[in-house]
Amino acid sequence: MEKTHWFTERFESRDVVGGLSFRIDEILFEAKTPYQRIRVLRNDFFGKVMLLDDIVMLTEKDEFYYHDMLMHVPLLCVDNPEKVLIIGGGDGGSIREALKHACVKKVVLCEIDEAVINASRRFFPSLSSGFDDERVELFIGDGIEYVKAHKQEFDCICIDSTDPVGPAIGLFTSEFYNDVCECLTPGGVMCAQTESPAWSLKNVVRIYGNIAKSFKSAHLYTAPSPCYPSGLWSYSIGLKSDKNPAKDFDRQRARQIAKLCKYYNPEIHRSAFALPNYIQEKL
Amino acid sequence: MEKTHWFTERFESRDVVGGLSFRIDEILFEAKTPYQRIRVLRNDFFGKVMLLDDIVMLTEKDEFYYHDMLMHVPLLCVDNPEKVLIIGGGDGGSIREALKHACVKKVVLCEIDEAVINASRRFFPSLSSGFDDERVELFIGDGIEYVKAHKQEFDCICIDSTDPVGPAIGLFTSEFYNDVCECLTPGGVMCAQTESPAWSLKNVVRIYGNIAKSFKSAHLYTAPSPCYPSGLWSYSIGLKSDKNPAKDFDRQRARQIAKLCKYYNPEIHRSAFALPNYIQEKL
Repeated sequence: MEKTHWFTERFESRDVVGGLSFRIDEILFEAKTPYQRIRVLRNDFFGKVMLLDDIVMLTEKDEFYYHDMLMHVPLLCVDNPEKVLIIGGGDGGSIREALKHACVKKVVLCEIDEAVINASRRFFPSLSSGFDDERVELFIGDGIEYVKAHKQEFDCICIDSTDPVGPAIGLFTSEFYNDVCECLTPGGVMCAQTESPAWSLKNVVRIYGNIAKSFKSAHLYTAPSPCYPSGLWSYSIGLKSDKNPAKDFDRQRARQIAKLCKYYNPEIHRSAFALPNYIQEKL
Repeated sequence: MEKTHWFTERFESRDVVGGLSFRIDEILFEAKTPYQRIRVLRNDFFGKVMLLDDIVMLTEKDEFYYHDMLMHVPLLCVDNPEKVLIIGGGDGGSIREALKHACVKKVVLCEIDEAVINASRRFFPSLSSGFDDERVELFIGDGIEYVKAHKQEFDCICIDSTDPVGPAIGLFTSEFYNDVCECLTPGGVMCAQTESPAWSLKNVVRIYGNIAKSFKSAHLYTAPSPCYPSGLWSYSIGLKSDKNPAKDFDRQRARQIAKLCKYYNPEIHRSAFALPNYIQEKL
């Protein structure tokens, strides 16, 4: 009988706790780039899975929670966003969501590792469908340098990064968030994925604190994400105003967008800002 | 070098997808009862973990999400609940939460397997603290028979069962829910754990449908539960009225209860009823 191989993501300290676990039904792709190791596996339940340095980036089954909540919440807090910058997000899922907003005229993706884009084009057509849209510009390079070089240019900036280790570490500092703030138009909004409040609350609090220092106001929200450790994920919004992103969003556009989404709708938007006591106490 | 042993919960089909994974730092207890196999393991990150038939029932670190949301949401939808019935819940976590409501005068726990209660007394003092409270009555026996034998007696009934396999299978049928409905006082409310909408949506829809058939109105809500597969869990409320449990709850008592909880608060209560589109479409 053939031996069954399983993959279990190792969480933080790596030898104590696991994240997603699944049987490896097929190894579709493996590559070592100057930045990281990319693997694409297939599992009968989750479909194709992308790993970067053995951390699950997405599964075909469950990627929609993360991409819906990272993109639509900030995009609906801006009046008619036209120019969107995505830092990271080489799989294309965030581009796909941004393009659902008819008002968006340009989406720049700034991804440091072109090999991620190429792997997504090859194995994840449902995510990479937006790469060839005429509104999309792909920039291969460092997000830190990109935001330094562009001032007051984008209405919405989304940080779709890996965890704060390896190539993404500079994307979680207050220096970077200061530059992101200056890269936004006056009514602009930033949003970043900020890790698991359930299992990495210290990280969440530290990163959120850096964002709060760099913006006029900041808000944390949470949503499920079954392919990430603990299944509960956090996102932080930085604003150049005192707007309340839980209430002050474009409900008419939100209802239109909801028709195109498996997860996002206006009630979900508002509800995501209701925080458990254990998080409120630390912010 | 000593070999490291890991535990990975096997989800549903058991050989394709896993739930919680962690290093086994100590095996504290193992027993085979007439109903199931009980194990208590210890992990440096999660603390003590209780397994029934190799399914994770709770971890010390993360049990609060589930017990907060299973108990406080229904208890706050009843005006001054005095008598509470918990079916299953032999670990005691649900009793502990029910006793936080000062208006509650009696809590009956109906657990089929006394060995679960004994294991919790021995290894989980933070969960089993309520067993010796004078308001608590422990009944060792079948929940199905218990509700048949008690009519219009309880203001709130919570079904804190294992998954719909093995000893708990009869706790998910419409026949059982009919008897639960008759066991409630006229203003009474029932709540049941109803599995993961992310990874078991068919189960959720089937069980919720059975509850909706047996009650005047029914509502589904969700909350994170990092120790269960996918990290996203559902609960179904059955009511003998047209009350909206997302809005018609005792906010003053909810604020008091929130002071005693890590997860539950009135905004979390309301927000839990905001459902993703993919769930709404199936209900």
